[in-house]
Order: sequence, then structure tokens, then C-alpha cells
Amino acid sequence: MALVVQKYGGTSVADAERIRAVADHVARTRRGGEDVVVVVSAMGKTTDGLIRLAEDVSAVQPGRELDMLLTAGERISMALVCMALAELGVAAASFTGSQAGIITDEVHTKAKILEVRGDRLREALARGVVPVVAGFQGVSAARDVTTLGRGGSDTTAVALAAALAADRCEIYTDVTGVFTADPRIVPRARRLPRVSFEEMLEISATGGRVLILRSVEFARNHHVPLEVRSSFTWEPGTWVLEEDPTMEQATVSAVTSDTSEVKLTITGVPDRPGIAASLFRALADASVNVDMIVQNTSHDGTTDISFTVPRTERSVAVGIAEGLSPKIDAAAVLVDDGVAQVSVVGAGMKTNPGVTATMFEALAAAQINIQMISTSPIRISCVVDAGSADDAVRILHQAFGLEGAAPRA
Amino acid sequence: MALVVQKYGGTSVADAERIRAVADHVARTRRGGEDVVVVVSAMGKTTDGLIRLAEDVSAVQPGRELDMLLTAGERISMALVCMALAELGVAAASFTGSQAGIITDEVHTKAKILEVRGDRLREALARGVVPVVAGFQGVSAARDVTTLGRGGSDTTAVALAAALAADRCEIYTDVTGVFTADPRIVPRARRLPRVSFEEMLEISATGGRVLILRSVEFARNHHVPLEVRSSFTWEPGTWVLEEDPTMEQATVSAVTSDTSEVKLTITGVPDRPGIAASLFRALADASVNVDMIVQNTSHDGTTDISFTVPRTERSVAVGIAEGLSPKIDAAAVLVDDGVAQVSVVGAGMKTNPGVTATMFEALAAAQINIQMISTSPIRISCVVDAGSADDAVRILHQAFGLEGAAPRA
Repeated sequence: MALVVQKYGGTSVADAERIRAVADHVARTRRGGEDVVVVVSAMGKTTDGLIRLAEDVSAVQPGRELDMLLTAGERISMALVCMALAELGVAAASFTGSQAGIITDEVHTKAKILEVRGDRLREALARGVVPVVAGFQGVSAARDVTTLGRGGSDTTAVALAAALAADRCEIYTDVTGVFTADPRIVPRARRLPRVSFEEMLEISATGGRVLILRSVEFARNHHVPLEVRSSFTWEPGTWVLEEDPTMEQATVSAVTSDTSEVKLTITGVPDRPGIAASLFRALADASVNVDMIVQNTSHDGTTDISFTVPRTERSVAVGIAEGLSPKIDAAAVLVDDGVAQVSVVGAGMKTNPGVTATMFEALAAAQINIQMISTSPIRISCVVDAGSADDAVRILHQAFGLEGAAPRA
Repeated sequence: MALVVQKYGGTSVADAERIRAVADHVARTRRGGEDVVVVVSAMGKTTDGLIRLAEDVSAVQPGRELDMLLTAGERISMALVCMALAELGVAAASFTGSQAGIITDEVHTKAKILEVRGDRLREALARGVVPVVAGFQGVSAARDVTTLGRGGSDTTAVALAAALAADRCEIYTDVTGVFTADPRIVPRARRLPRVSFEEMLEISATGGRVLILRSVEFARNHHVPLEVRSSFTWEPGTWVLEEDPTMEQATVSAVTSDTSEVKLTITGVPDRPGIAASLFRALADASVNVDMIVQNTSHDGTTDISFTVPRTERSVAVGIAEGLSPKIDAAAVLVDDGVAQVSVVGAGMKTNPGVTATMFEALAAAQINIQMISTSPIRISCVVDAGSADDAVRILHQAFGLEGAAPRA
């Protein structure tokens, strides 16, 4: 019998009605002749509410205790899903991350999965019981409860699908799939019927919010086919799959944008070996996630180094850059908070050398200045002024012919 | 170093402010040179809220899933207490029932504790860390999460105190101790500085709501001194201790009342051996908790059997009685929903034969009719009309001289 892992996000289990709808869909899948493992997030805004409560109680929130607190959320949603299934006559049993055998490292609030045992889930399936597993959580070798960080429930679902050799992993959310652009910015954006893991990685990495990067990496590494679908419309969504070399590939699949980063520039850096290394080592040691890095060729023996970091890591990064600047005889540290990254992603780009030119021409025609450029074999990203980001997305979406049919009147 | 287990009930951790007050008290206890193990209930009305949510979702609530759901409550409160302690500089770590090694049977929603391992709590204490343990919950041999039923957090606290050989167990609640009568009924009721385990058992069994019967039994069996105290005033409360034979004992310590039961009477029961046995075996098989039983001597070869059962078990009990009635040639089954049990409890009663007479005279003088009587060595209970219950408590409280000083003006 085929096995499918179905993951339901917070909006999909936000209230009693939605939980009953989820149970109904699980029951239908079972009646269709497939075994199901369900993974759930906490209901709606439960996690945010618990974080606010913690802030009310104490300015000090040890990671171990924050994890203990937040894991209460999935405990509630998974028990309720099991009850709704019971009412439909479907035998189900809930399992915490620990009970499901999700073994992680001990890095509280952003633990990494080390091993998925899953014995109790296999036993439940063998008995005809639907396992309903808490997403986002695991247990460390020290038997402490851990959480997997943002989007952790997707990671749980993919990890379980891999460990249980599931035929596919369905990620249910409040959108109907992966789009050629954010439909709020581009009303005529189309849902993609399929994207490759590589494209999805680039889309997730450059501002696509549907799937978290880590879960896509995990799915790719373990060859787990994903389908992103809506638990509100239940219509077919977007498949995320191995690249199929026999199929013709769209040159550009999607246009994304990301305004979550700030740009730092260190000017007048002496152009000597090891200078850049000392900067990025210091940032890495402080766990700052540097994204794009650009260094111009030097003139007068000095160069400018620009890089982007998440807005949340702005102050740490600025502190390090300003601390290092006098030591390396740099001129100044400039910070630009008003930047956005706009990217085009497409597997077919590898064999279509004109994409870069088309992108730059389209932006230039709209008087949008490009501040930084970075590329991968299937992606081109430009840093532009934040105020131009939405325009840039619309212009590129049109330039690469991604529009769907006009909306019905 | 002395070790104290402090249990904080739902009202004691109802909001951020109360949680900080609890942390402050724990920190003070530690500074006073004692080791502390904290046991917490779910915050305020959390459990009621979760039960309502379950009812919204499904009419079917398997016990295993109800337990998974409800145990989210303590998870939240214990993590928050640890955070509040961290802010005060006190190292603390939360432990679920499972992590604390509270091993129970598999009777979901009212599991019994089979064993308390407590290894992780001992390790934490050895490292100078305050363990904060989830009350009310445990884990079965099948590794499923269980709950201990109503008042289960008290049971957790007492069981831990016994397993860890604690010097005492403090039960913090929203009242300042055990009173000679419910102060809402008798404004001049006094707080008792100490009661024996035996008295406390009778008080809990006859309507005293401060401690649940099971936790008192456990404390008595394991010789754990209890102190019932207020987490709002922090003043000294009531000690529940082994009876001290060298001390003079009050004839009557407390007057209690209980309106949670109904009275069933089977009339015209043939006075043959085995008839009563067949009735009470059938009730026991249906898990009906029969409390008081009275059978009058027969006249004309028949007798009447009256008994009381919890109101929640009324329909099951009536069904059994009415089903059995024709088979034993009984005349009729009568149900009285308007009854109350009024009791006087006191260890000194054993050596004071006049108590029964005083009780009956006091009630008779107030024209309160006694419907049923039951006694133990240290308790006399009368079933009276529910409308007279509060009057009966006041009259008996006065008759046995239990009033405190007049309230200050």
C-alpha cells in the first residue's frame, strides 16, 4: 500500500472547523487506499501567544524552557486531530517528537535532526492506526525536548517521509502552491505545476515563503517528492521533484523578492590577501548569516566590500564590521537599510545565456538601478532600492513571459 | 540539606504576575537553605479551556488523546516558572511526568502511579538545579502519556516527596489552610493549625475541597508531612501529620457538607441472604462509587435499602437498580436528588461517646430531619434535606464550640 505523509500547517488547524476538515481529508485519503502519517503544527497563532506569555513572565528565557513551552502547541493540535479522526471512525494516535523518535542535537530552539527512529509509527501503521505526529519538535540524546526552529514542521514531515520511505510528502498550507511570483505583487502570477528541487531551493532562499529552505534540502537529499497544496481548496498544487532531464525546461520559472536583509559596505579596504577572510570569519564566529557578497576590483590599492545580512542580525554585523574596520585600515562602514533583493530562478537558465541581459535591460528600461549582482547556475539576484522591489518583480515577471491568462471577469 | 516539595495549584500560577510571585517564593526558600522540588498545575482555567476545545472538535474523545491534550497545560506553566526563576538567577529545569519518572498504569484520564523513578530530579538537585515538575501527568509502561485525574497534581507532589524522601510537602492553593467549616457557610470558621492524616481523610471524603482524598491517602501511607498554605498570603497554613498520641485531641475538628450525591432507595426488598450483595456487585461492576449504605431491619419479610452515589453516576446507578428490582421482587426504586451529607470529624471522638447524641440533639432542636446515618471511629455523617445543609453546618459548628474570635470590626 502506498504511504503518504501529510503535513498541516498552523492555518490548516487554526480552529475546530478546520481541524474537522483536516480529519475528513485524512479519512478520504485512507478510503482511497493509502496509508497516511499526519504531521501537524500548532493551531494558528498559538506559538506567538506562548512567546508573548513568556515575555510577560520573564526577560530571561532559557532555550530548554522555551522549547518545553512551545512544544505544548503541537500537543494540543495533534490530540484534537486524533479526536476528530476518532469521530469519523478512523483509529489514530498522537505522537510527540520524542515518541516518534525524532532525535536531534542539543541546540535548543533550532535543533537539527540527527536520526529518525519511527518505530512506534511503523507499529501504529501495521495495526491500521493513523499516526499523528507533532511537527517542529524532537528530543536530544540528553532526553531534553528540542524544537527545530522556523518552518520546523515541514522538516519533520520530510524527515519522516524519508525515514518511513513514504511515496510522497504533501505539505498543506493556506496557498495553493508555488507561484511564478507572489500573487499579492503580481496578480497574474501562475501556479507552477512542478518545480525541481534545485529551483525550489533557490526560490526558498530568495524570498519565496511557501517552503522553508531546510525542508527542501532535506527532501532533495533524501529523494522525497513533495507536493505543496491548499487545505482550504484541496485542489492539486505544486510538485517539487527531481529534475527530469527529458523535459523541456522553462528558462525562468519564478521571480522572487526579499526585503528581509540589510546591506553593509566597508569602503577603502586595503587590497591585501586575508582581509576579506578575517571579516567573514569574524561574522561566521558570531553566527551571522551572510548572504550576498560583492567585492569590486581595487583602484588605488583599496577596494569596497559589500555584503547583505538578515535585518535581525544587523546590529551584530555592524558591531563586528566597525570593530574590524580600524584594524584593517578601512575607510568607513556604511549601512543601507533600504535595500531589496530581486531574483529570477529557472532550471533552463543553464542553457540560455541571454537571461542576464534580458533581466538587466528590463530593469534599466524602468530606471531601476542595480546595486549588487550575484548569480548561481539557475538564479540571478540583484540588490535594488527597496522602494523599487515590487515594480522590479512585476517588470521581470512580464519580461520573461510568466503571466497566466487574464483573470476571469 | 532539607528538601521540600512545593506544589502550586492552578490559581497560584494563573498569570504572569502570580508565576513571578511563585518564583520569588521558591528563590526565598532556596536562600533559606533548603532544596526545593516544584510541582505545578496548569495555569488557571487552562484545562477547562482545553476540554471545551475538545468538545468543539469532536464528540469522541479517546482517553489517550484527551491525556495528550490536557498535559499541554502543565508544560506551559512549568516552562514559565523556570523562566521566572532564571530571571531571579535560580537555575531551574522543567520535567514532564515522563521525564520525572512518574510511571503509571494505562487507565487514561485517571491513571494510578505505580512507581516514581525520579533519577533526573535527583541529578538536577545534585547539580544545584531546581526541578520544576508537571503535576497531574505520568507515562505508562507502553510509553503513552497519562493523567492522574482530578486533583492529580497534589498526588504528584506527595508521590515525589515520598520518592525523594523530602522532609515535607507544601501544597500552595488559594485558601490559607484547612478550616473547621467552609468559611463561606460559617464566617467564624477557624483555620486548623494541624489535623491528623485520619481526620484529613475524613474531611476530604465528606466534602472538604482543599485536598483530594487520594493525595492524603498517599501522604499517610508514605509518612509525608503536608502543609496546606496560601500562595496569595504566604502565611503559615495547616499541617497534616501523623496523629500525635501525646497531644490532647479536639473532640470535633471540623464540620463538612457535601451536596454532590443523590440518594436511591429500593423498597420492599425480600429479606433474603445475597440480595444486597447482588445489587452492590452490579454497581461495582459498573464502576459506580457507592458511598453511604443503610439497610433497615425487615418487617413483613421485606426491607428498604438506601444508598448514595455521586450525582454524575446517577443514571448508571438508577439503570442498574431498576433493572435488578423486578428480578429480586422488590417493590420500587425511589430517587432523591435533594439530599446533602453533613459530617462532623474529629480524632478525639474515639474517646468521647457523647458526640453522636450532641449532633442529633442539635439537629433535632433545629427541626432538621436525619434521613440516613453512617459513622466511622472519627466521623459521624447524616443525610439531610439539601435545603437544610448550610443551616446544619452552622448549627453543628456552634454546638461543638468551633467558632474562632469574632471578626475584627
